[in-house]
Amino acid sequence: MNITLVLYVVGHVLCYEAVLMLLPIGVALLTGVNDWIYFVYTIVPLLLTGLLLRSRKPKVTKMQTRDGLAAVAFAWIFLAAFGALPFYFSGYFNGYVDCFFETVSGFTTTGATILTDIEGLHNGGLMFWRSFTHWIGGMGILVFVLAFLPNMDGSNVQLLKAESPGPTPGKMVPRLKETARILYLIYFGLTIAHILCLVAAKMPLYDSVIHAMGSAGTGGFSNMNASVGAYHNPAAEWIIAIFMMLFGVNFSVYYLLLKKQVRDVFKNGELRLYLGIIVGSVVFITLNIAQKYYDGSWSDAIRSAFFQVSSIMTTTGYSTTDFNLWPTLSKMIIVTLMIVGACAGSTGGGVKVSRVLVLFKSIKQEIRHLIHPRMISSPRMDGKVIEKGIIKGILIFFFTYIMIAIVAMLVISVDGYDIETTITAVLSALGNIGPGLGAVGPMGNFAGFSQLSKVVLSFCMLAGRLELFPMLILFVPSAWKKSC
Amino acid sequence: MNITLVLYVVGHVLCYEAVLMLLPIGVALLTGVNDWIYFVYTIVPLLLTGLLLRSRKPKVTKMQTRDGLAAVAFAWIFLAAFGALPFYFSGYFNGYVDCFFETVSGFTTTGATILTDIEGLHNGGLMFWRSFTHWIGGMGILVFVLAFLPNMDGSNVQLLKAESPGPTPGKMVPRLKETARILYLIYFGLTIAHILCLVAAKMPLYDSVIHAMGSAGTGGFSNMNASVGAYHNPAAEWIIAIFMMLFGVNFSVYYLLLKKQVRDVFKNGELRLYLGIIVGSVVFITLNIAQKYYDGSWSDAIRSAFFQVSSIMTTTGYSTTDFNLWPTLSKMIIVTLMIVGACAGSTGGGVKVSRVLVLFKSIKQEIRHLIHPRMISSPRMDGKVIEKGIIKGILIFFFTYIMIAIVAMLVISVDGYDIETTITAVLSALGNIGPGLGAVGPMGNFAGFSQLSKVVLSFCMLAGRLELFPMLILFVPSAWKKSC
Repeated sequence: MNITLVLYVVGHVLCYEAVLMLLPIGVALLTGVNDWIYFVYTIVPLLLTGLLLRSRKPKVTKMQTRDGLAAVAFAWIFLAAFGALPFYFSGYFNGYVDCFFETVSGFTTTGATILTDIEGLHNGGLMFWRSFTHWIGGMGILVFVLAFLPNMDGSNVQLLKAESPGPTPGKMVPRLKETARILYLIYFGLTIAHILCLVAAKMPLYDSVIHAMGSAGTGGFSNMNASVGAYHNPAAEWIIAIFMMLFGVNFSVYYLLLKKQVRDVFKNGELRLYLGIIVGSVVFITLNIAQKYYDGSWSDAIRSAFFQVSSIMTTTGYSTTDFNLWPTLSKMIIVTLMIVGACAGSTGGGVKVSRVLVLFKSIKQEIRHLIHPRMISSPRMDGKVIEKGIIKGILIFFFTYIMIAIVAMLVISVDGYDIETTITAVLSALGNIGPGLGAVGPMGNFAGFSQLSKVVLSFCMLAGRLELFPMLILFVPSAWKKSC
Repeated sequence: MNITLVLYVVGHVLCYEAVLMLLPIGVALLTGVNDWIYFVYTIVPLLLTGLLLRSRKPKVTKMQTRDGLAAVAFAWIFLAAFGALPFYFSGYFNGYVDCFFETVSGFTTTGATILTDIEGLHNGGLMFWRSFTHWIGGMGILVFVLAFLPNMDGSNVQLLKAESPGPTPGKMVPRLKETARILYLIYFGLTIAHILCLVAAKMPLYDSVIHAMGSAGTGGFSNMNASVGAYHNPAAEWIIAIFMMLFGVNFSVYYLLLKKQVRDVFKNGELRLYLGIIVGSVVFITLNIAQKYYDGSWSDAIRSAFFQVSSIMTTTGYSTTDFNLWPTLSKMIIVTLMIVGACAGSTGGGVKVSRVLVLFKSIKQEIRHLIHPRMISSPRMDGKVIEKGIIKGILIFFFTYIMIAIVAMLVISVDGYDIETTITAVLSALGNIGPGLGAVGPMGNFAGFSQLSKVVLSFCMLAGRLELFPMLILFVPSAWKKSC
């Protein structure tokens, strides 16, 4: 790989991170919580490292696929490593690994916390930074850099490919820079709308901003120990549930809406399946919990079910209730949604609805082929034939996903948690969700895991956010060879 | 599909089943347990149905792929439906669905029981029949019919393909009939050797036959409530552990050994991975349990670990100890082995080691392709390039496997068992293993599930044994259309 080029990109990203840290300093000063100094401590080494890495201009600026993958992987690891420093300097966390875990959880929009008392962090700069990482990570820092940076010739496609969630990077307009800008504008607009709705529902402004950033990035960090449930505010719950669902949709859908191509939106197979799964899951869970857990109050049961389905399927991870106590059917639906995840090209994680759709179409075609061996047909999506390479890629992605999950489960099982906790902790990290079941349920946290498990889970979060392969190639010796 | 031809094959199979039922009658008479009459009650309708179905000779005897798949699926469903009747007539079981579940569990070599008191069945004809279904199902009834039946032109390949475990039907010699015969001879020889070893280890003859048939078919039905653990016989435990491992090996390996091609055996990638996984799992589990569960008695810990690993990986399901009480790491290893399963072309179930091997090679190639996009290479196994079609087929198989598992888990979760029980009950049924964890652990049973769950689990067992697609195409309307 072209190490100089990779480090050059990482340097740029770190400089941007330093600039972004001015925001929590401002928030700290505004809220009067005296934690701005930790960011100042961080910005100094961060900026120095960034400028140092940027100083050595690469001779070859044409980026190969592997360079793009490595750049994204390194950028995210460094981003989290430096992003963790303010937490570390504050002394509120139990060592650097915990800070790193929390920051990886933030940037990857997982929302899993190792804090046992979140509210003790106070509503100042640190709390803002914790949720701001969700917002940055949701759309992607490199997409951000691309949108507002001078062109680095040829690098852009590789970086966007490696960082975009889902099998099809959203090339909505021919010029990539323009695409990235449109994405960020939609993202910014929806976030502002979300904040305004929450404020209208009488949530305090600071909390509204925190939760809007969490929904927007499909992250799930709350500033309350009891998450969204702490507010006992049905209107806010509905608003957050709906916005989570909106942020789980492929952003190209919004672009089509902006261009008034409403018909194309309804033809979108992934969107239809996504909404179908949400409706189906809400119906089953509501029927399953209404009598026993809500004394037959259907409106409470529906709100609760919709909030949780929207939260888990979009891999956000907010909760209004302890679904760990729900009956097994509802819990199994939740586990299934954890694996499926949100739409490609959204800020959500998981395997992605479009991949699941393609996989189902492959099964259907395989069966059809068994019945009519001589009939040649190809599975289609949204009217277009799906290329064989794409199908194979998705199948391999799915198998790799399951394999990483199993290996991670084996490693963290050494900690001796029960099977339910072990399995869902990994699925939750890999799918960038946040809560799992058992000890890592919505009312639990990840504090009890060993240092090793926290590192493994951090790896899972990064692998899940970056679509597995950028993280995997770091382990392949031949990827490190100097490219010609 | 060519219904007449399918029913014609089913008719043949049923007639053979009637003949095979003479054996438990003989055993009942020999042991003096008065249960031979239930087989007489069964043979009458069984033989009549068989002869009736056989009487209508098909005009077209050329078998298409779909006909082969449907014939195998129907043959197995009918086989179990009639095989359940002696149990039903005995009145010892709790209704017909329980009898059907137990018989499907037998034929598919799962070994999951709905009996809460196995020993109450007495060591007579019924107990023999219960374990004999393992032996028949292990190698496959259609393979048996093929080996000793006059040729039905062209049908044989399709039937063997549909019934053989694993992606590559073992065509060891050019003539299929000969292949089937060699397979059965090896199978028979190893079973006899197994019985003799157990008798030498001072296990009673009846029990030796029962357990040898259970190991041979990688089934797992024991005539003792506490499974093999009931004998407190370390020698017998070692013998069974070793034979289970042997029956989990691709039978073509034994054919190579018979032909003295020892070098080819050691080159076999699947065999090496299979043995490697066993050794690795035994080492980890031994280290994990020796101190805490065996007071530092390493020989007990190793024997226990080896027995359980061999039992679960080959999908047999015997137990000498309640591994449900083991630490989480050991339990997670057990769950992983449940998914991997035995070698292709053995009597074991699961995804199969060779499939896992191909899937890993695909991941490796995918990563290599990302690093060197212009390098064209194909994954190889045992020196030969793996065809693209095979890789895609295996990837689709794996995804289908996981999908069936998730759907089944959702359905049986209605029964309200905990997540651990729900997940492992399905993995156990689909992998034809027998025990799971939690309520279906080695000391538990499947009696508590609802009728619906028992039917769904029976479907999983059949789907797992017949490699998914024969059972799946029964649900596709176009498969039922009359073929031209």
